[in-house]
Amino acid sequence: MDRIPVTYFPVATQQQLRVNHERIAGKPYAHYWDPTLWLRAEVLPAIEQPMESEQALRFDDINALLDSGYQAVENGYCEMPDGSAYVASLVPFPGCTGEMYRWWFWWHAKESERYTLWYPHNHIGVRCLSPERLVQPGLSHEERYVGTTHHVDEYIGPDRMKLAIHFLDPAELGLDTARFEAAGIVGHACARVSLRSEPIDAATMVHLARRTADGIEQRSRYWIGHAPKLRVLGARIPVDALGTALGIKRRMAGARVGYEQLLHDQIEFSHLSTFLADIHREFGG
Amino acid sequence: MDRIPVTYFPVATQQQLRVNHERIAGKPYAHYWDPTLWLRAEVLPAIEQPMESEQALRFDDINALLDSGYQAVENGYCEMPDGSAYVASLVPFPGCTGEMYRWWFWWHAKESERYTLWYPHNHIGVRCLSPERLVQPGLSHEERYVGTTHHVDEYIGPDRMKLAIHFLDPAELGLDTARFEAAGIVGHACARVSLRSEPIDAATMVHLARRTADGIEQRSRYWIGHAPKLRVLGARIPVDALGTALGIKRRMAGARVGYEQLLHDQIEFSHLSTFLADIHREFGG
Repeated sequence: MDRIPVTYFPVATQQQLRVNHERIAGKPYAHYWDPTLWLRAEVLPAIEQPMESEQALRFDDINALLDSGYQAVENGYCEMPDGSAYVASLVPFPGCTGEMYRWWFWWHAKESERYTLWYPHNHIGVRCLSPERLVQPGLSHEERYVGTTHHVDEYIGPDRMKLAIHFLDPAELGLDTARFEAAGIVGHACARVSLRSEPIDAATMVHLARRTADGIEQRSRYWIGHAPKLRVLGARIPVDALGTALGIKRRMAGARVGYEQLLHDQIEFSHLSTFLADIHREFGG
Repeated sequence: MDRIPVTYFPVATQQQLRVNHERIAGKPYAHYWDPTLWLRAEVLPAIEQPMESEQALRFDDINALLDSGYQAVENGYCEMPDGSAYVASLVPFPGCTGEMYRWWFWWHAKESERYTLWYPHNHIGVRCLSPERLVQPGLSHEERYVGTTHHVDEYIGPDRMKLAIHFLDPAELGLDTARFEAAGIVGHACARVSLRSEPIDAATMVHLARRTADGIEQRSRYWIGHAPKLRVLGARIPVDALGTALGIKRRMAGARVGYEQLLHDQIEFSHLSTFLADIHREFGG
């Protein structure tokens, strides 16, 4: 697997990196801090031009993610005809397991410094609104995050975002969880994502971890600005509102937001894949 | 020399690439069109964090560029204490000569399509305000561009810029041209750059081509927002005005502008270095 170093770091994230590095000093997991970010060479074509919007997975067809094999586009971004954005992203996690994956989705949320390990330049802070779940004995990994909301602050591209991530049972998005075992799904992190500055659901996010020959792979899909309750206000509303919140208000708002989300997803999960097995071995017991 | 593929393409430049590709079809030099952009691996540290502003070359010390060897920082960007920006950039051109370099600086300006070869995603158009110089017999290469103004439209980072580049004799910037021969300088492209939308000199740009063991190398310096005639209005004015024109109006305007300029310079000149010898052989006779 050819690793290509990331060649663009918005200036504000370069500054955030230094803040985060100072903040993590002394934490027992500080030795997992690693600002070396990379992308798989095979993903580069997907970040050089948009995919055809006709190839986007329709939200209503979400269960196609449970079919064997791969979709026509596993890495891509585009603006949809209604101005919303679609993103598909696949990241292999060789040497990792569903146990590790499910553990990470609650463990990281206990301290902002843990969250910064995941994307040292762009992650700023995380706060779980149900902190009691993170320490309550006897819960499964999923019970520690499904149904909770995480408030996260992070840079997505050059834009500092204040997000609320409400983790759901995948069935709430229409996923046929009875098919998970046969489909090799060993972990999930599905959510409605909203901007804390705006009273809207900004996006629906699906992460599914699937068993592979040498570990797991995460397949992600984002539908941004597609929320039905906003569609009645006119198809351009969601992305326009999102664009305003992002401070972008430009042409191709949907494409821009999708592009930055694809890059963000690829970078943060490729990075996580390098240390997840080790940090779980040390702290996941 | 390790070539690292560029991993970030602002969405608007992805669209511009398609426009440019269509436009160049049929031109006799269309076979030099190549959208493969890269950076030298050794430059990556310079694009991951700013340099110390104490290490910036003071404009008044410009003749230090004629000393043998290299400065402490040959690749870097920073915001200066007065809010202006400084950029240093070095690009090797193995297999190239001063003749090729000087030729390029007027030859590209004859048609926008030639200009797009240089940076296929980001260059849009060029217009030389003294077009008669481009065809007048008997002129040296320098006489075809020094003293002229080029109006260029290009993306610098995500921002579409309308620039006026007024090429100068290097002596007008205080460079001791009597030292050029001893210093191995075989080409130059020095200019005051202004925004066509604002009545200000935005930047001073120095490109010096120096002979090396295997060709030439270009050493560039940019002082952005440093123009003395604006300094009297208060040190923050130049960059604030520039920031407004860029549509950025954010914290760290100087740093952002410098960062994008460093990346832009590295990408366009590294790319030019791959085809300059060949295109000169075919069209420079």
